[in-house]
Amino acid sequence: MRYPSHLIKLIQVLKKLPGVGARSAERFAFQLIEWKQEDLEEMAKAVSEIPEKIQACTACGCLKSDSLCTFCADSKRIASQVLCIICSPRDVFAIEETKEYKGLYHVLGGLLSPLNGFGPDRLALETLKKRIENHSIQEVVIALDSTLEGDATALYLKRELSPYSLQISRLAFGLPVGSSLDYVDGGTLARAFSGRGSF
Amino acid sequence: MRYPSHLIKLIQVLKKLPGVGARSAERFAFQLIEWKQEDLEEMAKAVSEIPEKIQACTACGCLKSDSLCTFCADSKRIASQVLCIICSPRDVFAIEETKEYKGLYHVLGGLLSPLNGFGPDRLALETLKKRIENHSIQEVVIALDSTLEGDATALYLKRELSPYSLQISRLAFGLPVGSSLDYVDGGTLARAFSGRGSF
Repeated sequence: MRYPSHLIKLIQVLKKLPGVGARSAERFAFQLIEWKQEDLEEMAKAVSEIPEKIQACTACGCLKSDSLCTFCADSKRIASQVLCIICSPRDVFAIEETKEYKGLYHVLGGLLSPLNGFGPDRLALETLKKRIENHSIQEVVIALDSTLEGDATALYLKRELSPYSLQISRLAFGLPVGSSLDYVDGGTLARAFSGRGSF
Repeated sequence: MRYPSHLIKLIQVLKKLPGVGARSAERFAFQLIEWKQEDLEEMAKAVSEIPEKIQACTACGCLKSDSLCTFCADSKRIASQVLCIICSPRDVFAIEETKEYKGLYHVLGGLLSPLNGFGPDRLALETLKKRIENHSIQEVVIALDSTLEGDATALYLKRELSPYSLQISRLAFGLPVGSSLDYVDGGTLARAFSGRGSF
């Protein structure tokens, strides 16, 4: 016996969410069937209004609530002349939580991954270069994932930004705080050794 | 730094899905932000159209695609005079997959759970009793979860249906097929023993 056609469609749509397979999508769909109409309308509205209600700053790519981006409009951050390069708008929230950083941000929107069709042209480096010039940036902090794609993108950025008189840094590699040596992989341990500091 | 207000709302809505906590809801929301507008519209439409496109048969409670319920309109199933009582419309698909059952269905819509406000009145037993009379049902198969709520509901149904000259059965308890004794809990093993059959 087959599911009703709209149920099949609903499952297909829900499967597009990250980490949601056929089983979870079915569970979501059967739960949604039991929701009240107003709850369904609320979810539909929340989803369809995303483009209108959640917008990214055209300059830095961070999410903004109002017409002004809290970072781009902050004179202290502009005066810092430091620019932090991140992959997605989500990273901003994690970095802001640490309260370690008070400079500007620049969202790349993705990491180099030519096999997935994300080549250097997608990084929009011209915008980045213009911002570096306009804000007389002195330091660029590359805060990208420590994955193959993150490493490749970091190296590419370093090469592209080398003509500027800039200090380019990347987030430190080493032991995660609270971790036990037993559970740390060899690569991390090697980076922790080579990056050891005086104590 | 706080999330934009619509993002918070979106996360709240997504958290209502079964098994989705704050972390997953955030992951879903940040992914949705990157979707194209037409994909968002498609999801919103799929969700808001649920009440209109997916309807339950008013007689048996099973989901139906067209105006007619495939089960209630099937003369062979009606002639079988067997009624299978299930908790949710979803159970029908699992039972139909087995190809073991060819009778009618009756969806209860929930299991007795007084603490959660699901009392005997919610089971709508009058409808069930009327169907038993109208279809001259000879056997009722109780196919409910083997949980506390399922057991309580099964016992309640058995008592309520006892005035009818009916054969009342419940799904067998025992070892799941393919399971190893090592991994089977004591309660299941005890039921498997008491229900052992000649071999």
